[in-house]
Amino acid sequence: MLTALLSLALLGTTAVEPATGQSAAPVPQTAATPIAADWRPIPDDDLLVMTLSGDRRVVIRLAPAAAPVHVANIRTLARTHWWDRTSVYRVHDNYVAQWGDATETKPLPAGVVANPPAEYGMSAPEVAAQLTRADPYSRQTGFTADGWPVARGSWLDKGTEAWLPHCYGMVGVGRDMAPSTGSGAELYAVIGHGPRHLDRNIALVGRVIEGIEHLSALPRGTGDLGFYKTEGERTPILSVRLASDMPAAQRPHFDYRATDNPRFAAYVHERENRQPPFFTVPAGGADVCNVPPQVRRRS
Amino acid sequence: MLTALLSLALLGTTAVEPATGQSAAPVPQTAATPIAADWRPIPDDDLLVMTLSGDRRVVIRLAPAAAPVHVANIRTLARTHWWDRTSVYRVHDNYVAQWGDATETKPLPAGVVANPPAEYGMSAPEVAAQLTRADPYSRQTGFTADGWPVARGSWLDKGTEAWLPHCYGMVGVGRDMAPSTGSGAELYAVIGHGPRHLDRNIALVGRVIEGIEHLSALPRGTGDLGFYKTEGERTPILSVRLASDMPAAQRPHFDYRATDNPRFAAYVHERENRQPPFFTVPAGGADVCNVPPQVRRRS
Repeated sequence: MLTALLSLALLGTTAVEPATGQSAAPVPQTAATPIAADWRPIPDDDLLVMTLSGDRRVVIRLAPAAAPVHVANIRTLARTHWWDRTSVYRVHDNYVAQWGDATETKPLPAGVVANPPAEYGMSAPEVAAQLTRADPYSRQTGFTADGWPVARGSWLDKGTEAWLPHCYGMVGVGRDMAPSTGSGAELYAVIGHGPRHLDRNIALVGRVIEGIEHLSALPRGTGDLGFYKTEGERTPILSVRLASDMPAAQRPHFDYRATDNPRFAAYVHERENRQPPFFTVPAGGADVCNVPPQVRRRS
Repeated sequence: MLTALLSLALLGTTAVEPATGQSAAPVPQTAATPIAADWRPIPDDDLLVMTLSGDRRVVIRLAPAAAPVHVANIRTLARTHWWDRTSVYRVHDNYVAQWGDATETKPLPAGVVANPPAEYGMSAPEVAAQLTRADPYSRQTGFTADGWPVARGSWLDKGTEAWLPHCYGMVGVGRDMAPSTGSGAELYAVIGHGPRHLDRNIALVGRVIEGIEHLSALPRGTGDLGFYKTEGERTPILSVRLASDMPAAQRPHFDYRATDNPRFAAYVHERENRQPPFFTVPAGGADVCNVPPQVRRRS
């Protein structure tokens, strides 16, 4: 029973991890169990559907409030089918999977801002659910009411600026050396331990909410930094579409779990204080990247 | 140049990441550059070589000081070839790859302690290199002189107990519900964001120092918690051997980088304070799991 029971224990860790794209196993009702009203629809315009060869689908929730100009670019790139016939050309173990135009020669469509403002922080959003402990990157972490992880208050400057943290599954914008901010044409998803040192240095534009395994389980590139050495190793991108541009019958629908309620606060508390029968010593705290925001597919 | 330069920037993050199993790209000489004497040999008895089908090799550095009885079990299991013809039977995205006897019926060899002491902490080892900030799981983190990441001082009990943290690539022992501690026959490697809530609740026995991609890039199991639904999906394990039991000509040799010197302290400082031309805002701190211990293969 070793395996089965270890799994049971691990269930507490990742049962509702949306990034896995796996269905959650049954979870007992607790104070942390959401009620129907906690689930709110994600707008079709905020859902980006990337289809890889083999009909592998990756669904990304966009974060327009965090990076409005970059997200506007991404919507334009999707509406003009710019990513079609591009590829995932880099998979760097414990770091990122990166996609776009590997040749770096494809012209950007009209309307795309080549070098948007540095949308690396958010003008102090309300932190609806807060974690107990600070972390090495921020004095406070938590979640916005609409389910985005958020960090606030850097250690070096004493400001109250907030930003999206680089957690597993977060999607960011590849860029040139500063002051370049990147257009959004070259994107990456975090597939390893959260590289939080990138926080506030690069634009985060969304989060993979389904199908991350189609990126995280790809063969690692054997070139430096995980770039594939040959074109044949790349994973073709068949299409990238906004759900709002897909035929109604084909659109995926997702809800996010609202965080501004006592049930989500209880969920955070449970993540910070794991309990028997598996756990014997609770930590009394958790890393924001170990408290995954929750989403669900709506039929 | 977007891609190339984003990579250059990312180089600072993972160039010497041993878990990637990739060769490090050239790094400029800095105060953090190790000297020859900083590299110390890892004993052959502390190197576990797992060969998967297709001659995919995973090399694990064992941590006998942290979990002596569990590691003694693992050495016995390797010497008796117990893992030969077992498999990697679970790959859970953003969590763990787990291997051993999927049937859970294979008898343990003589000499294996079925339920060792709970080797979840270390009697206050000297922390030779310390990070600047606390994290949500421990009041202090750093490295032992021989290159193991270490956390010390939990938030709930005010003790000074130290322990190995669950970072990417760390290898742990699957176990039944407490008070079971697991024999070491069922092992897992962390392939996602460090699940630090497992710290002090489960025995960590080592770290993958080469070939982690042979575990992290495996197809994810589609059963609950990443278990493969069919036997055919499992990855066969051809053999698991201690380097000390391999013919001398076939033994891999690795050095670890000692941490009790100003060069390693400078390396930690560089990881905590990323610099231009890519970075514009240093964090002033880092998560211990983002400061990978360094090893190198010795020819």
